[in-house]
Amino acid sequence: MANTYDFGLVGLGVMGRNFILNVADNGFTAFGNDLDKEKVNALIEEGGDTDKVNADVDASNFVSALSKPRKIMLLVPAGKVVDIVIESLLPHLDEGDIIIDGGNSFFTDTDRREAFLKEKGINFFGAGVSGGAKGARKGPSIMPGGSRDAYQYVKPIFEAVAAKYNGEPCVTYLGPKSAGNYVKMVHNGIEYGLMQLTSEIYDLLKKAGGLTNEEQHKTFAEWNSGRLQSFLVEITSEILTQKDDLTDGDLVDMILDKAKQKGTGKWTSQNAMDLGIPVPTIDIAVSMREISALKDERIKADEIYDRPSPESVVKDTLTSKAEKALYFAFIMAYAQGMHQLADASKEYGYELDLGEIAKIWRAGCIIRAALLADITDAFKAQPDLPNLLLSPSFTEKVKETVAATRELVAYGATNGIPLPGLSNALTYFDAYTSSRLPLNMIQAQRDYFGSHTYERLDREGIFHTEWEK
Amino acid sequence: MANTYDFGLVGLGVMGRNFILNVADNGFTAFGNDLDKEKVNALIEEGGDTDKVNADVDASNFVSALSKPRKIMLLVPAGKVVDIVIESLLPHLDEGDIIIDGGNSFFTDTDRREAFLKEKGINFFGAGVSGGAKGARKGPSIMPGGSRDAYQYVKPIFEAVAAKYNGEPCVTYLGPKSAGNYVKMVHNGIEYGLMQLTSEIYDLLKKAGGLTNEEQHKTFAEWNSGRLQSFLVEITSEILTQKDDLTDGDLVDMILDKAKQKGTGKWTSQNAMDLGIPVPTIDIAVSMREISALKDERIKADEIYDRPSPESVVKDTLTSKAEKALYFAFIMAYAQGMHQLADASKEYGYELDLGEIAKIWRAGCIIRAALLADITDAFKAQPDLPNLLLSPSFTEKVKETVAATRELVAYGATNGIPLPGLSNALTYFDAYTSSRLPLNMIQAQRDYFGSHTYERLDREGIFHTEWEK
Repeated sequence: MANTYDFGLVGLGVMGRNFILNVADNGFTAFGNDLDKEKVNALIEEGGDTDKVNADVDASNFVSALSKPRKIMLLVPAGKVVDIVIESLLPHLDEGDIIIDGGNSFFTDTDRREAFLKEKGINFFGAGVSGGAKGARKGPSIMPGGSRDAYQYVKPIFEAVAAKYNGEPCVTYLGPKSAGNYVKMVHNGIEYGLMQLTSEIYDLLKKAGGLTNEEQHKTFAEWNSGRLQSFLVEITSEILTQKDDLTDGDLVDMILDKAKQKGTGKWTSQNAMDLGIPVPTIDIAVSMREISALKDERIKADEIYDRPSPESVVKDTLTSKAEKALYFAFIMAYAQGMHQLADASKEYGYELDLGEIAKIWRAGCIIRAALLADITDAFKAQPDLPNLLLSPSFTEKVKETVAATRELVAYGATNGIPLPGLSNALTYFDAYTSSRLPLNMIQAQRDYFGSHTYERLDREGIFHTEWEK
Repeated sequence: MANTYDFGLVGLGVMGRNFILNVADNGFTAFGNDLDKEKVNALIEEGGDTDKVNADVDASNFVSALSKPRKIMLLVPAGKVVDIVIESLLPHLDEGDIIIDGGNSFFTDTDRREAFLKEKGINFFGAGVSGGAKGARKGPSIMPGGSRDAYQYVKPIFEAVAAKYNGEPCVTYLGPKSAGNYVKMVHNGIEYGLMQLTSEIYDLLKKAGGLTNEEQHKTFAEWNSGRLQSFLVEITSEILTQKDDLTDGDLVDMILDKAKQKGTGKWTSQNAMDLGIPVPTIDIAVSMREISALKDERIKADEIYDRPSPESVVKDTLTSKAEKALYFAFIMAYAQGMHQLADASKEYGYELDLGEIAKIWRAGCIIRAALLADITDAFKAQPDLPNLLLSPSFTEKVKETVAATRELVAYGATNGIPLPGLSNALTYFDAYTSSRLPLNMIQAQRDYFGSHTYERLDREGIFHTEWEK
């Protein structure tokens, strides 16, 4: 039995178990490892044939079961656990073996681990995996970064298990070091934005149009058969038709409106600020999860302040405008994320191919959407495109949808329906497309109180004024 | 001459020179130090009497000129320079001496330095100073944090040099460790928000109302004599009347609209995200500086996309609404910053007194405003107030101004005038005052694709649904 299994996986939670079964489905033999004996037994039972899928609680037995160079994937919680698992594996590994961290590790942790393991002759990959539990089982999108040379050993397995879009696997080598974790982080940041936007449209359709859950279910389903086709629009539709087991109503109405977060959206925003790249649609999605957590304060504040009664609107017109606004705002969220990736690629030496990234996001992952085929084409046509908004193929999409977005944002502001994601998508667009912004005033203020100097429109140089009081 | 000067200051740039002259004006003797001989000579010359103000390039001479315990303030650029200066002073110091970092150091750096110096028996203060060059000379707001015991030695000097509000000095001991730098950081975050908001109103008055710079100068001046009275509104008014030396026009029109930043606004946003506190008005101010930097892309994008021609509005009505909206949005910016301080106080053990903080911001600093007297009263009345919006004294102010804000945000959205700060202030308000937000949909989505579980409205517990496909 020694040195025969093609693939090893540590961490047999839902994601790990599903991923390993997916590997086995695709003709590779796989061996699992987990400290929890029950999880080990559960995998062996579900695998059915220990020649194909086996597992052991012991790290030494686990490692020696794998063919060389060993390909060991970790699907364990990000943070210290990753370091602990690596330390526990190290004594049993040989030079040239490969460890793949499949979790949402922070990218600088991946850089640290990669440098540490390189000294020991071990190849390390940070490979973000998106698609949730179902994706892991049936085909996720995989975002690996690390050693280009070592990728050849991982490639056949990853390409076999990954989701397929028109037959093309949703995985590719992305770049050195933490490129994979970074791309997955921004993927999740975009995901935060898209989720916030769908939740706002759901709120608007309910409050402004009085659409029932069932009507909204149909509306989102219809949108999902058009240009808004995407995993998140699809599941929004399905969520709206789910009945509640505990009451007679719809489940969505009974769910508490406090959204949790695990950190990847926050990291995206924080790192974008370090890079100096504006991602306001992602920032506001993070803020809204924070505001949502203040439920007790919100209840108190709601009692103090009145809200306008929403003006009635015509349902059909509303849904048509909402479709346009959601499409417009989705474009802004992707544009911001891709912008961040382009800049991070230079800053961290990832040499990212944005067209390839959009390509492997077309299926399998949470942000998969028809739009990603267009984004792929835009970056294939112009690899150094600074922003999607400057792509000729996006100009018409944006022009056709911006007016409806303006109307709905104005409606939300007037009627007290908070549309922060939609608003930020619109002001991002309006600011990005303004050759002249009023930040000349800010530069004047900075020079006034802090002698921070300013530049001029009409000549080169750095200027300072002794402002008259 | 040895051991006679009351106060030492390292770093004789504009801020340092002005601060030391301010100290001397108030009857204390002061000694400066800078590696640059010219700056040392300039100070001696400006001081006029070396018995009162003296300076030396040599660190040893500098230290031995000071009375014990020595009180040495650093006004040098944040970052490594601070560590270098501390190292250069250390060999000459005695136990009980006091170093005060007056720069915008990141608060964790201050914590590190404080711990390092405590081991050596040296007291360390992180003391943010706000007010720009003029404030340093005539009376800044000072935000010191560090050892409560050692503060007695610094107190008389700081209270003498600080700005006064109704005779009360704008300085107080804020809390242990990096409390002072943290409070200054959030002060600057609020400052970013207020600057963004004034720049948007300036843009709106110009584009929607067609107000000339001269008309705006008068408008802002008028506002500055009312409830909007504040340093930033005052200088905005003055900036608008400044003539350009190089052309015949107004200077503000010639200033390039690329706003720089030195990091404190960004830090405020990033740390708020770590704490989980929403500060969207500050976040968007950071984003807008980033977008402003993309001038070349903005020019290209402006050529591609049309912008609606702003509907004409009645000037008088517009300025009245703009005054209300700016007041509303200022309140939101302060509310967010104070919220962040309240949470940071718990998280980092600062034991901040928010009423005292608002009090020392009433004069001297960049965000000084009539509003701060009201904020002081609100927190004095209710020290554990979770958010300004819940203070009875703010309810009416907000209720009276929100309708105008709604109108202007809607106008900006409809007419393509980007008002991101104003929009975020409004959506923050609308979200914070919503007992029910649509984030139940986000929790449903998270449970759908990631089995992340959710809570319910009608009963306690953690739930997961096997969503039907």
